[in-house]
Amino acid sequence: MGSWKDNIRKINPYVPGEQPDFPDMIKLNTNENPYPPSPEVRKILDAYPESLLRLYPDPNSAKLVEAIASYNKLRNDQVFVGVGSDDVLAIAFMTFFHSDKPILFPDITYSFYDVWAELFRIPYEQIPLDEHFEIVRSDYYKENGGVVIANPNAPTGICQSIEALEDIIVHNQNVVVILDEAYIDFSNMSARKLIDRYENVLIVQTYSKSRSLAGMRIGHAMGNPELIAAMNDVRFSFNSYPMTRLSVEIGAAAIRDTEYFEKIRRKVIETREWTKKELKRLGFLFGDSMANFIFARHEKVAAQTIFDKLREKHIFVRHFSSPRIENYLRISIGTEQEMKTLIREMERIIQ
Amino acid sequence: MGSWKDNIRKINPYVPGEQPDFPDMIKLNTNENPYPPSPEVRKILDAYPESLLRLYPDPNSAKLVEAIASYNKLRNDQVFVGVGSDDVLAIAFMTFFHSDKPILFPDITYSFYDVWAELFRIPYEQIPLDEHFEIVRSDYYKENGGVVIANPNAPTGICQSIEALEDIIVHNQNVVVILDEAYIDFSNMSARKLIDRYENVLIVQTYSKSRSLAGMRIGHAMGNPELIAAMNDVRFSFNSYPMTRLSVEIGAAAIRDTEYFEKIRRKVIETREWTKKELKRLGFLFGDSMANFIFARHEKVAAQTIFDKLREKHIFVRHFSSPRIENYLRISIGTEQEMKTLIREMERIIQ
Repeated sequence: MGSWKDNIRKINPYVPGEQPDFPDMIKLNTNENPYPPSPEVRKILDAYPESLLRLYPDPNSAKLVEAIASYNKLRNDQVFVGVGSDDVLAIAFMTFFHSDKPILFPDITYSFYDVWAELFRIPYEQIPLDEHFEIVRSDYYKENGGVVIANPNAPTGICQSIEALEDIIVHNQNVVVILDEAYIDFSNMSARKLIDRYENVLIVQTYSKSRSLAGMRIGHAMGNPELIAAMNDVRFSFNSYPMTRLSVEIGAAAIRDTEYFEKIRRKVIETREWTKKELKRLGFLFGDSMANFIFARHEKVAAQTIFDKLREKHIFVRHFSSPRIENYLRISIGTEQEMKTLIREMERIIQ
Repeated sequence: MGSWKDNIRKINPYVPGEQPDFPDMIKLNTNENPYPPSPEVRKILDAYPESLLRLYPDPNSAKLVEAIASYNKLRNDQVFVGVGSDDVLAIAFMTFFHSDKPILFPDITYSFYDVWAELFRIPYEQIPLDEHFEIVRSDYYKENGGVVIANPNAPTGICQSIEALEDIIVHNQNVVVILDEAYIDFSNMSARKLIDRYENVLIVQTYSKSRSLAGMRIGHAMGNPELIAAMNDVRFSFNSYPMTRLSVEIGAAAIRDTEYFEKIRRKVIETREWTKKELKRLGFLFGDSMANFIFARHEKVAAQTIFDKLREKHIFVRHFSSPRIENYLRISIGTEQEMKTLIREMERIIQ
């Protein structure tokens, strides 16, 4: 007779970035937006009748789906919503990668992809990026069970051209290709139009970065109605009411406030470009990030040293210990003031 | 060469109760609480700084875990929280039923259990309840991959004694036994104390019923720290930030307001007992429900007839088409006034 412990699924879980909590800290380690969400969010919180919270949410989150569809010029049946893009991606992996052939994604990319593959027992192959952290297209021409590409890539911030993505899609017409656009609003390079042309392409985006709503857990996928329906079938087999009533209301209000959205994403982009110039001046090396972070190493000083010294000053950035990137730091873009403080501390550290 | 459609996971999803939306309706079909949540919830909504929503939530939902642990006199490492008890149960199935032997649960019970088993490819066997919808203990003495019992059972409302549950647990020491106590607060029969004695028992509860927070998606599991840690490993491999910041704050505030909680759950229980007497008077037959619903059939009139006629009056109850229960209605307990209206309509229908 065995033990109940024998039937437990053993897992090496994803390790999220630490969430330090000091009043004076500068938190540049989890790619959050330094600006508050749309002022419409306050109005929702003030006006929402708490008595409605006794009722289940709409299982289809129709109000939020409609707002996202309208913003992206899609029909409602082309949009799937979930509890952050992690939830959306997990469900997409479970839904579409039901094959014995390995799915393909870069060796350096969002570190959740291999965790989901392990969890759902999906075979996978991590394809090395080239020495500039660029994708080598022809590596994706072989037989596989699916393809996942983060664009801009995490943690490098590097964007592939639409033409490069389309080339990979053309060579992978018999599997689902997922484009993870978590950071796309900090570029102008969304592959949104490709879902009109290719029925096997799923684009995933999030409210956690450009919309300043990481705390409300909202993400969505866009693709042809057959893809979306298959995801909803899996969703409804897992948890039929995933989104809180407040997430639906707040998400719908936030996506409609395009003016505020444009204002804060431009500010983040401007601050990123300013930070690039300053980091370059200080001897940092990095690719051309199109995200709300910069992935950089210093020509002389080790990443671990910089990380530790910033930490002493309660400035938190992200340092990964994986091979090929252990000498890099991923620095989220904060407010202008925060980045000025960062650069000032960096100057002291590297001199 | 195959099609991308070949790799899609085909699923028969769980079908949630319909969510009709008429201003004058009496909604007794999804076992929601007729009373609003604790007044503390309004205070949270008014006071919560919306700017904090730009930040990720605490991945451990520590504030909520602490409040639940404190209420249940447990340590924090004995509590797991999720996006409603559906999310908690789904993760428990994925974590603990990693065996080739079938898991066991009743033929008439929460209709999500077989959906999760199918989704995660867990073999399962549905054990018939007896003719009074009671569990036959000895049916659970055989070898299996795990046991799941809803207590009170859904949709029957019938409660097993702690002694009966303990007997089943004693006979199943080498697998995890899940007790789904979604409706337990409407009884006085929680098996909470069994987790102190049996390390293989997991108790799952929800905020959606007795706490009037179905719209905020909060559920939890309680068990020995090894069970909880294994669930967290799976959780963090799926979605590392499942709970919104507002769910954590609202949940913690609601569970601390024990006075309000006691008041509304007693009201629901009183109204249930009044409704039982009235239904009996009208010729309905039902077991002794310990939940916030009554599962009843009429001695003469077919369930479908009653269902349709109530519906015409915008009174919504639940009717299942499954064998053995197709002549029953599941009627959630509403306010006194709502139940008086229901009984008045029932009188007209059955005469």
